[in-house]
Amino acid sequence: MSFLDKYKVLVEDAIDQYKLKDQPVQLYEPINYILGLGGKQLRPVLLLMACDLFNGDLKSALKPALGIEYFHNFSLMHDDIMDKAPLRRGKETVHKKYDENTAILSGDALLVKSFQMLEDLNPDLLKSCFLLFTKTALGVCEGQQYDMNFESQQAVSFDEYIHMISGKTAVLCACSLKMGSIIANADDENADYMYEFGRYLGIAFQLMDDYLDVFGVVNKVGKKHAGDITENKKTVLYLLAVQNADEKQLERLTYWFSRTDDSIEKISEVIKIYKELKIDDQCLELVRFYTNKSFAYLSKINVSDDKKKPFYQLVDYLLVRQN
Amino acid sequence: MSFLDKYKVLVEDAIDQYKLKDQPVQLYEPINYILGLGGKQLRPVLLLMACDLFNGDLKSALKPALGIEYFHNFSLMHDDIMDKAPLRRGKETVHKKYDENTAILSGDALLVKSFQMLEDLNPDLLKSCFLLFTKTALGVCEGQQYDMNFESQQAVSFDEYIHMISGKTAVLCACSLKMGSIIANADDENADYMYEFGRYLGIAFQLMDDYLDVFGVVNKVGKKHAGDITENKKTVLYLLAVQNADEKQLERLTYWFSRTDDSIEKISEVIKIYKELKIDDQCLELVRFYTNKSFAYLSKINVSDDKKKPFYQLVDYLLVRQN
Repeated sequence: MSFLDKYKVLVEDAIDQYKLKDQPVQLYEPINYILGLGGKQLRPVLLLMACDLFNGDLKSALKPALGIEYFHNFSLMHDDIMDKAPLRRGKETVHKKYDENTAILSGDALLVKSFQMLEDLNPDLLKSCFLLFTKTALGVCEGQQYDMNFESQQAVSFDEYIHMISGKTAVLCACSLKMGSIIANADDENADYMYEFGRYLGIAFQLMDDYLDVFGVVNKVGKKHAGDITENKKTVLYLLAVQNADEKQLERLTYWFSRTDDSIEKISEVIKIYKELKIDDQCLELVRFYTNKSFAYLSKINVSDDKKKPFYQLVDYLLVRQN
Repeated sequence: MSFLDKYKVLVEDAIDQYKLKDQPVQLYEPINYILGLGGKQLRPVLLLMACDLFNGDLKSALKPALGIEYFHNFSLMHDDIMDKAPLRRGKETVHKKYDENTAILSGDALLVKSFQMLEDLNPDLLKSCFLLFTKTALGVCEGQQYDMNFESQQAVSFDEYIHMISGKTAVLCACSLKMGSIIANADDENADYMYEFGRYLGIAFQLMDDYLDVFGVVNKVGKKHAGDITENKKTVLYLLAVQNADEKQLERLTYWFSRTDDSIEKISEVIKIYKELKIDDQCLELVRFYTNKSFAYLSKINVSDDKKKPFYQLVDYLLVRQN
């Protein structure tokens, strides 16, 4: 992915440069641990790309970009406690490697640090980015709350699901793109278009994630095949299946989703239902729908098509992936 | 405490006015719950008093004052999980009333909200307050980490203890006073004096808290008498006792602090050792020492003595209390 490398190198160098060396180590070491696990670093890359699109100064965008990555990792640290997840990116989660109290408190410190990374911006830019970031951060908390609510909620509508992933995944992508635009002094209209582009892209990205969990090529590291089925998660696949199933299919689906085992039989039976109902095709159709919505906003942005090319490449990279 | 009432009424009205009504209720209701438990609201009152001292506009200080109170309550919400505390201000803690996941996530949202309360400040003020607030927030996390470290740490020195309470309690008081000064456009020197006044006052206040837990008049609501002894907490009383004890006394102290029961015998035996060593007098001496340090900074502030009177009254109120 050569067109992204330029930005990824910047982000990785910055993570290294800003490695936390403060005392007490018990607070800051777990932060360095989770930041060291890598990952796509999609959000800071989005921020830098947006800044570049409007000919902004990448250097001044670097700490805010890192702040977004910090925030993302804070949310992972706390979500993993709530989900009792043992693994993150194929390695032990923070609360497993250390303990829950550590994951709570180091997460809190990381959240504060994420805001602090705006500190070098001039007062006007700081205020704009601060307003955007706090609003986004609340949206992410709300998304996580809806996700937790869904676990015990009998019926979840498609709209509720989109609203949830909009908070949990999409607004942070949108925020990254808008913040990069703001730092590059893009005008409000273009910055807002970037936000909407990112929001719809984030939704498409999350739907693709749901799809790949079941229908993707099994990953080498970390994620288990069809983990969402094993954990009875109400993904878009499940919701579409419930919506489309006849009485008999609904009965089978309900039966398998009431079981808590991690048998291969359960996975293959649920996939069979999904295939009968063509849920895989429907899901990809939705991915296309939201991708097109995001492209509609990208096309409105008042910058030459040539400069936008990396964004089209990025969408390809994110949505035409196999795992 | 009539001189404080003016500020307390403002804070209470503001808490009511800014009651969180957003969705999802599962996220915001626990926040309204903990904010509704009352408490001294010392920190927002400090902020408003400082603003008043420099003839600032109390109205523009109100949301930041509330932000400080939000932050304080966020830290209580998460600390209570870590300490497995069942009660806060005589009522169920958030993680007991709801569950741990709720206390984690609502606490996160409250932390973000606390920063967001700076949103109406003009860009220059926002930047100054933002830098102060993020630095303080990290100090509070560090203080909490040191406090957790002490539980398993064999020997804790007096300096380490002061450093810990400086983070856990004092810097937020200091931050409140400095932020109120900044919002009132006090010059840097005066704002810094207010910070140091608040920091030493906060240390004196925490030492007094340790003293009152054991030697105060038993409280009607909430706190148990000598709860710190029951829980084997390494308070300043314990640290002074360890420092001053002869071999035999140290043996007795170590024996009682190795037991996990909540017997009255344990409490009275430990108090006996404290009295033998005159730890109560020593602790009050320390309270006076840090109060004098705080007064030294208060006296440097370039404002008439008459205007400073409420601060002297406040110190009296905080340090000559009986529970």
